[in-house]
Amino acid sequence: MTVSKTAGDAAKAPRAARKAPAEAATEAGALQMGELSELLGYSLKRAQLKIFEDFLRCVAPLQLTPAQFSVLLLLDKNPGRNQTEIASTLGILRPNFVAMLDGLESRELCARIRSANDRRSHILVLTDKGRSVLARARKLVAAKHEARLNELLGPANRAALLEMLTRIARDF
Amino acid sequence: MTVSKTAGDAAKAPRAARKAPAEAATEAGALQMGELSELLGYSLKRAQLKIFEDFLRCVAPLQLTPAQFSVLLLLDKNPGRNQTEIASTLGILRPNFVAMLDGLESRELCARIRSANDRRSHILVLTDKGRSVLARARKLVAAKHEARLNELLGPANRAALLEMLTRIARDF
Repeated sequence: MTVSKTAGDAAKAPRAARKAPAEAATEAGALQMGELSELLGYSLKRAQLKIFEDFLRCVAPLQLTPAQFSVLLLLDKNPGRNQTEIASTLGILRPNFVAMLDGLESRELCARIRSANDRRSHILVLTDKGRSVLARARKLVAAKHEARLNELLGPANRAALLEMLTRIARDF
Repeated sequence: MTVSKTAGDAAKAPRAARKAPAEAATEAGALQMGELSELLGYSLKRAQLKIFEDFLRCVAPLQLTPAQFSVLLLLDKNPGRNQTEIASTLGILRPNFVAMLDGLESRELCARIRSANDRRSHILVLTDKGRSVLARARKLVAAKHEARLNELLGPANRAALLEMLTRIARDF
């Protein structure tokens, strides 16, 4: 194995603090982001993590993750669909989805019912408790999470962002 | 536990195929996305997954994940920084970062060197092989991945998207 930069070279790098002043400063100054700050995938991931963290904070009283919230929304809008349909619509892998349903069912937020048409298939439905938790979550998300995003971006930018993200998810 | 919708109700739902015609059709028609299609967090996650999948395809000959690519880029730009600095700049949790470094080091793409200043700290550097793999990855990402994204969005939209994502990651 060959290494062409040694630890001593770090001290010689005068460029270290030139970029990314907003990054958390370290003893030796903030790191240079270089091409990373131009990569759409990297920025998407960082923005997504930030938004998920804020979502968790806003919905903390209800202990719902963004994925659980999306399952409840979809069940509410599409009662009587089966596991496979819900999981594939949300792009969640089957084992992950089964684990998530176990959690939601143990909290009595949804129920699996054996399908009358196909005994091997399970129909998913919200319980009354699930509907009530979803209603409270909707309010928290709208009043706290989405309102702050709207404030940060402005309605026109928010709409443009949503349109581009939807296009990427659909056509890329 | 109470359930107010039964499996039989599904057949009565005439709205089932009204929305989201681009979704994979099922026997009973595509599901209604409802509010989900208006949630920025959901669209961000779906777009991010699409972009990561495409990245993995484009860089498949080199077997690099987006996170590994970002580590190599950052090491190249900031030689001689320690593990903590690189991990915190990328927002990667320490245990995950250590596992990732183990993988990169076993492939001889980077090396951990004990710091001369602080014996408890490890300085990270790219190896020559790491630099060569990074150069090839940069070309694949630019020529395949980023070029296709540019084609889909157009340069002006791409720049606007990047700006909004960066703002969310920084200020939200």
